[in-house]
Amino acid sequence: MSDDLTRQVLAGSPRALARLITWVEDNDPRAAQCMEALHPHMGRALVVGLTGSPGAGKSSLTDQITHHFRQQNQSVGIVAVDPSSPFTGGALLGDRIRMNRHAADPGVFIRSMATRGFLGGLAQATDNVVKAMDASGKDVIIVETVGVGQDEIDIMRIADIICLILAPGYGDIIQSMKAGVMEIADIYVINKSDHAGADQLYAEVNSRILQDAQIARKKREAPPVVKTVATEKTGIDDLMAAIASCGHAFRESGHMAEKRRERVRRQTFQMIHFALFQRLEAALARDGRLEDLVDAIIEKKKNPYQAIREIVDSFIRIPS
Amino acid sequence: MSDDLTRQVLAGSPRALARLITWVEDNDPRAAQCMEALHPHMGRALVVGLTGSPGAGKSSLTDQITHHFRQQNQSVGIVAVDPSSPFTGGALLGDRIRMNRHAADPGVFIRSMATRGFLGGLAQATDNVVKAMDASGKDVIIVETVGVGQDEIDIMRIADIICLILAPGYGDIIQSMKAGVMEIADIYVINKSDHAGADQLYAEVNSRILQDAQIARKKREAPPVVKTVATEKTGIDDLMAAIASCGHAFRESGHMAEKRRERVRRQTFQMIHFALFQRLEAALARDGRLEDLVDAIIEKKKNPYQAIREIVDSFIRIPS
Repeated sequence: MSDDLTRQVLAGSPRALARLITWVEDNDPRAAQCMEALHPHMGRALVVGLTGSPGAGKSSLTDQITHHFRQQNQSVGIVAVDPSSPFTGGALLGDRIRMNRHAADPGVFIRSMATRGFLGGLAQATDNVVKAMDASGKDVIIVETVGVGQDEIDIMRIADIICLILAPGYGDIIQSMKAGVMEIADIYVINKSDHAGADQLYAEVNSRILQDAQIARKKREAPPVVKTVATEKTGIDDLMAAIASCGHAFRESGHMAEKRRERVRRQTFQMIHFALFQRLEAALARDGRLEDLVDAIIEKKKNPYQAIREIVDSFIRIPS
Repeated sequence: MSDDLTRQVLAGSPRALARLITWVEDNDPRAAQCMEALHPHMGRALVVGLTGSPGAGKSSLTDQITHHFRQQNQSVGIVAVDPSSPFTGGALLGDRIRMNRHAADPGVFIRSMATRGFLGGLAQATDNVVKAMDASGKDVIIVETVGVGQDEIDIMRIADIICLILAPGYGDIIQSMKAGVMEIADIYVINKSDHAGADQLYAEVNSRILQDAQIARKKREAPPVVKTVATEKTGIDDLMAAIASCGHAFRESGHMAEKRRERVRRQTFQMIHFALFQRLEAALARDGRLEDLVDAIIEKKKNPYQAIREIVDSFIRIPS
């Protein structure tokens, strides 16, 4: 079953890709088998991340960028992630409406995700979805998240190039600074740049970048700030040029390889963490040890810290 | 050093408690020593959780509840947690201003927490803070979180009694339902009940509870719905009565013991998992195996899934 699906994903079947992603989301054991089989075919796609405050216009920009990549004959995968929404329903519907014009295009594959208590976390689930799209042959994968919190930063780390979308009156540049999104952004986009306050926002961002360059970023070129009006299709050429130029510079300088290495390290670590969790859960359920321990702790017959050390020692082959 | 602090915490020193919490937050090894020594003194406090949408009036209600508990001569610990804020600064300041009238009261201890990349997660860090306050002799501990996402639910599970604060026009009852907060709430509070839309919200909540009772909750009594206007001090007596009655009923029925047992089980599991992971992390860093593995994965010489199984197998005795 998973062999069939692997073949179909590699052949570019959108139905197979959709099913694999559902398995990934449901933590179906067949997902792991497929992902393992697909591994040699991963690592080819350019992953572009878009984040920013709700209302800044990320979906409209995603739509425009997708359109331009399609004009260049690049196939596109889109993952829209909403860490604040507990169910996919709302986000999915919204995206479908906005992205309607790409719905019939077999070169575009769209998927929405939201917090659903994914084992291993939302960022890891998103990463697996990106990898599945990558293996299925998508040239460009756009990861779009709502908001500028820690979850969004974790998700953005999946991307090769990170675009922070700001708009006058939508969300707070200070909030982005605090969350550390300003630090990780490669391209700043001032969307709705025809609105009042756009020039001030543009100036703020540039002054912030200047400040940043004086402190930490001397090694790298100052990130570009692009003005767009997504709904008017204004500035999209500039944004596409910035993405292309960023990709080129990152490949040349080794920065992209460095980013990807860091990502593999982080993911490997997370996978080990998760594998440990699963083994432990099964083992403790099997021998009833956890229940005995819980009893002893509640009745204060055992110090939990000491008891936990004993259990950990009994499991482990490596000395601490 | 940690022996001294343990003694001072047990003696009720706010300075010692503050320091212990800082150690907990910083994952200082001395925190574990203290928490271990304090363990026999934990489990006495009543933990009340308050959650709800931003703007629903949680802080004002916390202030009022604190005042009432103080009138009853109960000492109070307050943990204000903001999972969406990456830094403590903002939350801390806000709470300090709002809770100012309790600042000089030695019977009240206030602490704000926010996402700071806690090892083991924000919920576990919050749990440790609650335990430290408990050991220090606080009679009641109020855990206040902003929002109704998965993080907030994890944090609320620390509480014996969970209050969901709703207000007309602030946040979405549907959102709370989806997130599963409606399911875990023991008391519903309609704050700002003098505002337009309060009656409709009250009716919605009651209809939802009725629906719920028909499906799953037959065993338990229907949770109370209390109307308040925190800023006018209206309805606080009702809320206090609901909390007291809830506490009494939960103790009588064994529901509280059941909740606490589930909490100990979850925490014990997390502590074992975390301890195992820390050991493995140290082991991998020591022998350079992680870097070798990352190299092999990037060069596609190794399948990460297979390699991770090997590492986990070599590390623990638990069969998969």
